[in-house]
Amino acid sequence: MPELRKDPMTRRWVIIATERAARPTDFPAERQEPSDLEKCPFCEGREQQTPPEIYAIRAPGTGPNGPGWRVRVVSNKFPALRIEGATDRTKTGIFTRMDGVGAHEVIIETTDHHTHLGLLPTEHVADVVRAYLQRYRDLRGDTRFEYVLLFRNHRRRAGASLFHPHSQLIALPIIPKHAAEELEAAELFYSREGACIYCTMAQQEMEAKERLIFENDRFTVLAPYASRFPFETLILPKQHQADFGEMESGSEFSFAQALGETLKRLDACLQNPPYNFIIHTLPYKRDSRHAYHWHVEIIPSLTRVAGFEWGSGFYINPVVPEEAARFLREVQTAPVMAEVAHKQV
Amino acid sequence: MPELRKDPMTRRWVIIATERAARPTDFPAERQEPSDLEKCPFCEGREQQTPPEIYAIRAPGTGPNGPGWRVRVVSNKFPALRIEGATDRTKTGIFTRMDGVGAHEVIIETTDHHTHLGLLPTEHVADVVRAYLQRYRDLRGDTRFEYVLLFRNHRRRAGASLFHPHSQLIALPIIPKHAAEELEAAELFYSREGACIYCTMAQQEMEAKERLIFENDRFTVLAPYASRFPFETLILPKQHQADFGEMESGSEFSFAQALGETLKRLDACLQNPPYNFIIHTLPYKRDSRHAYHWHVEIIPSLTRVAGFEWGSGFYINPVVPEEAARFLREVQTAPVMAEVAHKQV
Repeated sequence: MPELRKDPMTRRWVIIATERAARPTDFPAERQEPSDLEKCPFCEGREQQTPPEIYAIRAPGTGPNGPGWRVRVVSNKFPALRIEGATDRTKTGIFTRMDGVGAHEVIIETTDHHTHLGLLPTEHVADVVRAYLQRYRDLRGDTRFEYVLLFRNHRRRAGASLFHPHSQLIALPIIPKHAAEELEAAELFYSREGACIYCTMAQQEMEAKERLIFENDRFTVLAPYASRFPFETLILPKQHQADFGEMESGSEFSFAQALGETLKRLDACLQNPPYNFIIHTLPYKRDSRHAYHWHVEIIPSLTRVAGFEWGSGFYINPVVPEEAARFLREVQTAPVMAEVAHKQV
Repeated sequence: MPELRKDPMTRRWVIIATERAARPTDFPAERQEPSDLEKCPFCEGREQQTPPEIYAIRAPGTGPNGPGWRVRVVSNKFPALRIEGATDRTKTGIFTRMDGVGAHEVIIETTDHHTHLGLLPTEHVADVVRAYLQRYRDLRGDTRFEYVLLFRNHRRRAGASLFHPHSQLIALPIIPKHAAEELEAAELFYSREGACIYCTMAQQEMEAKERLIFENDRFTVLAPYASRFPFETLILPKQHQADFGEMESGSEFSFAQALGETLKRLDACLQNPPYNFIIHTLPYKRDSRHAYHWHVEIIPSLTRVAGFEWGSGFYINPVVPEEAARFLREVQTAPVMAEVAHKQV
């Protein structure tokens, strides 16, 4: 019998196809896309091909917009939103519009065109996280914005238009729909139970163990109870914390380890799958630090979203989350270079 | 400057890329998928390869589960939900589950393996609509269900796993998230304005004309003001009507004409694009006939949904809806066979 499960954090129902439990091998690996190395604007030595550098982690003695960087942030050359302008809304009858004001930046994660975040040493991933944090905290100072969305599209099928490893950031003048929904559910739970819904869920999962993938000193990695997609995973800080931007100095490495290790396991299970990850954080102007809990959602692109999902907002997941967790818990990954690289810094 | 537009019916914001207005030719046609004719279980003469017939429109003198049908409805051989069972919910800590009870049916639209809904004569499309209505009304009688979702996935990229023209129906024991959201927004508008939000919107669009694609005696076809996707279209009845199942006898032909003509125009503009369409209707147990208005959403699959969309619930649309409407208004379609076929019946 298939099962209907409700995600308590989003109040979204998912149909879990328990009968025909799919295995990782049911999802054939995506054919390798062309790497477009010869015309890549994100490679070292081609810094002039991007808009000017906003932030970088660089070797001492090197200057902006030239070689010598480890992580580099630039404006998106084809931004979805523009940084200049005001956020007035205008109405025409029942329609509301505003200028497309916002920031759209690209975090170039490494000079190595052919690697990806799941293959990099943990200390390098930590540098990427430090770049996220720097940009997040900087943009939060712009009072026109309500939310800073950090996300990563990996491989063409998951929406990456360039091959070179990169993440993106979009600062928005409106709280995104999903953030508002999560916040509403979290506030409702807090008002009823006097506790954070994410802390409550994580504690229940640590006891049940069946959806736990792994943990480190500061982060827990789970397959969500009502996963929408096969091998969906969730990373959340063990200590209650609402805002990604408030991560303590010193936690970047633990977070990078949790993120890198999760991607490495997905890679080992599913052979470099296309995926999206998104950092969900408190809309920072809202006073709900007690109720909300930041987290990362990683969704491999293995199935297609079709009429049922578009029409209902519900999902059909052919992989039982407990099975996905077991595969990701038990999978053998390649030896980790992290510790070696860590010592160099 | 890009523009942020809010859809009043779903309260979803969309970024419209007004600067680089894409044209239909910016979306190259999908390569033709294999038609798998030799093993198609939906072709005439292979009726034994599907679960038993639930409903059919057939030539006089022909019996169920054999040739002679025009439109045929069967259970999905690999159903997402099962028809037997109860709808009790069980809780484990903060998680809620229920058995996957529901109906999952396939409406086989024609015996012709190689056609599609945009190419069929209007009278044949009207038979498909009659099959939708018969199944919708029948399943609404099952008190375990809350919603009957009718949708169509066209071509593999839009989620169709079989080539032969077909639509699907899923009856659900829970009101889908999107239906609940639309209903909530419609009820709120009604409580404030004393009018149906869809009627109000349609009237404004009939005056503005810039997003109007075409109309017939009973239906209006529009590009939504805050279209999420390039060439998204909306079909809605001119007379206020909340529930698809209450379509008057005699309206099927007008609806079929509006639907078929829209698909024909999308086909001519975008060369047989993959698409999903979904019939949005009142959750029929809810007493909001005054506030809600049924409609059809057609979304071509031309762009990829990626981290931004998954993370925010917002969308980036590279085609200005007024431009999409103009292309779809002005496109030349092949001569219509509808009237000839109509006279035969």
